[in-house]
Amino acid sequence: MDVPSDVIKKIKNSNDILLLVHPKPDGDAIGSIVAMGKGLKKLGKNVDYFVDSNIEPKLNIFDEIKYFNKDIQDHYNTVITLDASTPDYVVTPENMPSYEDLVVIDHHKSNEKFGDYNFVEITGACGELVYLILKELGVELDSEMEEALFTALSSDTGSFQFSNTTKQTHEIAAELYHKDTNFAPLSKRLHSLKNKDQLALYAHAINSMKSFDDGEIVFLELPYDVIEEHGGINNLTDDISNIGTNLDSSKVSVLIKEQEPDKFRISIRSKSPYDIDVSKVAVKFGGGGHFRAAGASFEGSIEDLEKKLLEELRKEIK
Amino acid sequence: MDVPSDVIKKIKNSNDILLLVHPKPDGDAIGSIVAMGKGLKKLGKNVDYFVDSNIEPKLNIFDEIKYFNKDIQDHYNTVITLDASTPDYVVTPENMPSYEDLVVIDHHKSNEKFGDYNFVEITGACGELVYLILKELGVELDSEMEEALFTALSSDTGSFQFSNTTKQTHEIAAELYHKDTNFAPLSKRLHSLKNKDQLALYAHAINSMKSFDDGEIVFLELPYDVIEEHGGINNLTDDISNIGTNLDSSKVSVLIKEQEPDKFRISIRSKSPYDIDVSKVAVKFGGGGHFRAAGASFEGSIEDLEKKLLEELRKEIK
Repeated sequence: MDVPSDVIKKIKNSNDILLLVHPKPDGDAIGSIVAMGKGLKKLGKNVDYFVDSNIEPKLNIFDEIKYFNKDIQDHYNTVITLDASTPDYVVTPENMPSYEDLVVIDHHKSNEKFGDYNFVEITGACGELVYLILKELGVELDSEMEEALFTALSSDTGSFQFSNTTKQTHEIAAELYHKDTNFAPLSKRLHSLKNKDQLALYAHAINSMKSFDDGEIVFLELPYDVIEEHGGINNLTDDISNIGTNLDSSKVSVLIKEQEPDKFRISIRSKSPYDIDVSKVAVKFGGGGHFRAAGASFEGSIEDLEKKLLEELRKEIK
Repeated sequence: MDVPSDVIKKIKNSNDILLLVHPKPDGDAIGSIVAMGKGLKKLGKNVDYFVDSNIEPKLNIFDEIKYFNKDIQDHYNTVITLDASTPDYVVTPENMPSYEDLVVIDHHKSNEKFGDYNFVEITGACGELVYLILKELGVELDSEMEEALFTALSSDTGSFQFSNTTKQTHEIAAELYHKDTNFAPLSKRLHSLKNKDQLALYAHAINSMKSFDDGEIVFLELPYDVIEEHGGINNLTDDISNIGTNLDSSKVSVLIKEQEPDKFRISIRSKSPYDIDVSKVAVKFGGGGHFRAAGASFEGSIEDLEKKLLEELRKEIK
């Protein structure tokens, strides 16, 4: 996979650069922006970051984060967006600085290349593209940049388990290791560490499991009072959405979170290799998403929600 | 990492080969023996397998397994042991065939090279060594061999998360991918899929959690009646032993399984990067194991067990 030469040229010729990512930045967004920013600084560039300040504690581990949201200038040569699939899905300063060109670096299939310059390829993580750019620019990675890129790759591929993992993902992961590298504590932090309430919510979700159609369809439900008892909605870990797909018989699973009394958020997942597009189901509820991971909101009774969900899911499973 | 030339020469010059692994074969043992056996057959050799027939359902996915334990000959040129650290820790036929030479292929630190020819290197998985041998022998991998080697690597490294994962692990993983390779269903099968009872046991273990010393020491307990209610001891998944280390504050964790009334099996784990050798604790209970994963048995009351465990663990944490 080659980096477009105009993207490299544009970056080389820019001195003042602003880096942006999507809201609620995940491991790929944080890892990509940290590695990119430090790499560009190593080339002597003036780099600023504007990032949603609501960073998950597990990702708040990079020294470079202390430079986020500091002294944003009125003007930049280039703005670079990372891991953002549309221009609306980018966090920007309230008073957006002026800039000459927009460079878009992203790995989402739906990205329509909204930049003046674009490096958009479907890869496991946006961090793969950042790695390729830094390599092309001749930047030597330091250990924080390696940890940042590993965070990006490992987060977005579910520790190399999702179907977006490719030969290139492992090739780049290999390049991040040296003789004494140990990414085990980082992996544990990204994928497994929880506080007591998060573990309790995980167990609650398992115990709430209901299954239908010989276990092909699974619902898990976290009621409002349970969520509140265990630290509130922000204390829910992402992996709870996947519990239903861990049931051996399941093809599709829904986590139903009661965010406020009778106001629900649903997360729908389908399991590889079954050919079930859950984004179509989410659309029926006014939501959206990807083929295997989608979401929507619902107001009403849990009984009505479950009934409608079953109907719509059965249409997609066929 | 180079394969010793005498090992390659010995294998090349052997026509009749018997392959052996350790009891209760795990993903690394099964993956290694399947890939090795099929690879040697591709070179025109006569290969037999003698394997503990108690193969976990999640690993019983290779067509080659149908040839296990069939028509064992009276004599072989060479016997190869895979993933076994000592000669005692190898499953053999009741009437062991005669053979000219023993080749030992293993990745355990404790292996004392008990073969006539040895390829013993500390790697993430024994499957890494098998890959290197097959490459050196010029064997072209078919898709089942690739899945077998991926099973070996992914199983023994906890999907590339454990501290035994290295640059080489990822380099070899990359070699197992082609354009349309999707190891996602296999990864899910190896690391996440559970039946309803296994999920219930997982939730039970979480809910049983007790912590001591500011959460540095964690105990989880599965009582006899709970285990029996959910399919018995063989229905427990390995990952239950790691739940305690997932608690953010923990340094060491013990899963206490009541296998029969008042007869306990303990699985002790310590977390990277903390310098806590749990094998020393296991030895105090007449058991043993590795630095970060050890086990032992105990008869008596759960109160006495917990008291003694706390005492011994506190000595190691210091």
